Amino acid sequence: MDATALISKLADTARIAARTLSVATGAERSAALLSIADAIDIRSSEILIANEKDMSRGRAAELNPSLLDRLLLTPARVAGIAEGARQVAALEDPLGKTLRQSVLPNGIELQQITVPFGVIGMVYEARPNVTIDAAVILLMSGNAALLRGSSNAADSNLILVTVMRDALATTSISPEVIQLVPSDDRDTVKALLHARGKVDLVIPRGSASLIRMVVDESTVPTIETGAGVCHVFIDEFADLSIALPIIINSKVQRPSVCNAAETLLVHKNIADEFLPVAMAALNEAGVILHCDAASLALANSIPASLATEDNWSTEYGTLEMNVAVVDSVDAASDHIAKYGTQHTEAIVTDNKANAARFIALSDCAAVMVNTSTRFTDGEQMGFGAEIGISNQKLHARGPMGLEAMTTTTWIVTGNGQIRS
Amino acid sequence: MDATALISKLADTARIAARTLSVATGAERSAALLSIADAIDIRSSEILIANEKDMSRGRAAELNPSLLDRLLLTPARVAGIAEGARQVAALEDPLGKTLRQSVLPNGIELQQITVPFGVIGMVYEARPNVTIDAAVILLMSGNAALLRGSSNAADSNLILVTVMRDALATTSISPEVIQLVPSDDRDTVKALLHARGKVDLVIPRGSASLIRMVVDESTVPTIETGAGVCHVFIDEFADLSIALPIIINSKVQRPSVCNAAETLLVHKNIADEFLPVAMAALNEAGVILHCDAASLALANSIPASLATEDNWSTEYGTLEMNVAVVDSVDAASDHIAKYGTQHTEAIVTDNKANAARFIALSDCAAVMVNTSTRFTDGEQMGFGAEIGISNQKLHARGPMGLEAMTTTTWIVTGNGQIRS
Repeated sequence: MDATALISKLADTARIAARTLSVATGAERSAALLSIADAIDIRSSEILIANEKDMSRGRAAELNPSLLDRLLLTPARVAGIAEGARQVAALEDPLGKTLRQSVLPNGIELQQITVPFGVIGMVYEARPNVTIDAAVILLMSGNAALLRGSSNAADSNLILVTVMRDALATTSISPEVIQLVPSDDRDTVKALLHARGKVDLVIPRGSASLIRMVVDESTVPTIETGAGVCHVFIDEFADLSIALPIIINSKVQRPSVCNAAETLLVHKNIADEFLPVAMAALNEAGVILHCDAASLALANSIPASLATEDNWSTEYGTLEMNVAVVDSVDAASDHIAKYGTQHTEAIVTDNKANAARFIALSDCAAVMVNTSTRFTDGEQMGFGAEIGISNQKLHARGPMGLEAMTTTTWIVTGNGQIRS
Repeated sequence: MDATALISKLADTARIAARTLSVATGAERSAALLSIADAIDIRSSEILIANEKDMSRGRAAELNPSLLDRLLLTPARVAGIAEGARQVAALEDPLGKTLRQSVLPNGIELQQITVPFGVIGMVYEARPNVTIDAAVILLMSGNAALLRGSSNAADSNLILVTVMRDALATTSISPEVIQLVPSDDRDTVKALLHARGKVDLVIPRGSASLIRMVVDESTVPTIETGAGVCHVFIDEFADLSIALPIIINSKVQRPSVCNAAETLLVHKNIADEFLPVAMAALNEAGVILHCDAASLALANSIPASLATEDNWSTEYGTLEMNVAVVDSVDAASDHIAKYGTQHTEAIVTDNKANAARFIALSDCAAVMVNTSTRFTDGEQMGFGAEIGISNQKLHARGPMGLEAMTTTTWIVTGNGQIRS
């Protein structure tokens, strides 16, 4: 069977099976997730044995250490994955929520409620935990899942999907709601991305290049999760005692992720006082500095170089940071509009009008006021589970939990009204 | 200047001007709409003169009568357009609404608020009223508008945009938030659809072929407005006295629009009693019938033919209707899943469990219970204004009013919290 026919078959099977999710109650979906969590615990050793096969292939292929670390499952990590499924099972049911309700003059009752998408495809890299994390979020939100992971994690993914399907077989939900898309062939990704009408939504999760490939190639609607060139702006009215920890946390705590900051903007009125201290602290933390002329002049003995035009729009993912002096809130916003990626922007200020203006002029998924960019995160925001961070404006923006995996329908109830 | 450079320039100008909308209050945006409405009234004769130029070109080119009718402006129609702008000005401000709010354990305040998209492109046909209708909805929701109408309406669109921009010049909002995209060249549409990063969203409005072209071609996110193969299912527990008017209204009241019904499904237990009556009434109303074998057997002397496989998935837009007998709610849902376009599905029943099951199994923008499919409409639903009916699941589903033209951002307010 060619890839297109295979994906078509998997999607059709998943869609029919998804009806068992459509008519299941939230309690039934929760119970199914708990069955999955228990099965993961009970079959932990099987999972670890399969993962070791992936690991030895990976070591033989000399995959890089960080990729191997993401691929690795340990008893503690497997227990953590099961615990994650239990946490999702404990969340509020996202389906059937009434978002809007009214009675029209003609007596018709109007209700907008949340419903599942139907069939959602996940395209991701060699992280076996995503296989479970994504599947349980999709099941809890009533969606069937087509999981296309990496061939590097093929054995891990196969056992994890088998464990989940075996667990579902003991519930009212069809095991066919979870479909593992073979990863031995790149054609299956392409076919998944072109299964318009068969697959309702594709979510890529992984590197910038994977996400770009999915968004460019897909004719199925996608949610772009993505790059973050995030800024921290220290206003002239900032409390400087909180400004420095916020900058360091935003840049240094985990530089590889999308909500880490890449550029520090400082108001000219406090630059002379604050920048030498801030740049010294960043240097001390191992951060390489790329400065505009004004901030470079304040670097003194701190190692720093003049930023190139490219630096301002680069998502380093490493301990490097751009620094610039700006004249005003508006100038900071201008810089951000020119170089930012509409992910997360932070202002440190005690002036409420300046905070409000920065918010109004920022076009991004999250604006931080007097706190770190690192808080743009589903777990930190209390969502309980996160399937990714949307970097687009349609449907969902910022961290996406269960609710983002639902769409809506209008229920229009009458007693024979017709339109005149 | 080539089309790509032109669109890029228009979009950049619009985005900078959109800042005057970002910082404007709802009252200021309302006032701007009222200025536009007044200007339309005052300059009605200029508008009619320009429209007459389009009309005479259209008559000379022998455009078809229905196209000419949509192109035509009359004093009453111009007054109606101004009145429409006033109605939008009177609606609740869709911006800055708090959708979710919470305080995290670390003291951070989390708020999800509505914000504009930024720059929205409209691609539409020779209907000059859309120029104003779309622009006022976009302005009220804080968005700059790139308007690409049809060359057949070029003179009408030019005067209407001029009137709006002149009116805005007297307000706090920059006239540059409305940009007319030249329509003398197809390249401007292509350039608009490829202005990813410059244009936040493109909405096509018009024929199925226009919409398909936009959705297929665009790399800018789009909202698909669209086709409707809508069904009316008469359950065995239907109140037959309301069933017939609902069927007739759904099919006959305005067959050319997307929320008109194309297929009638009748439960087998009432088919013998109900179908001869229903088919006679449809025939009486001028509807050509395409039947499955079971319903054809009940047609007796009523003209009807055996439906082809193609009939079931055809959006007629005319007085033609498919008829089939089904065994159950689930069988009706199976038929709809196979042939429907996820727009509007109706059930007529007095059995609540059957209605609930039909709702759960229907994957569509609106489900009608005991009422006509024709109510899937922003005006009928009390939205006050409608920019289109979304036939997709991302972002908006069903009729789209002001709220659908907003996206969200998270405002995260702390007092120095950092992530550990």
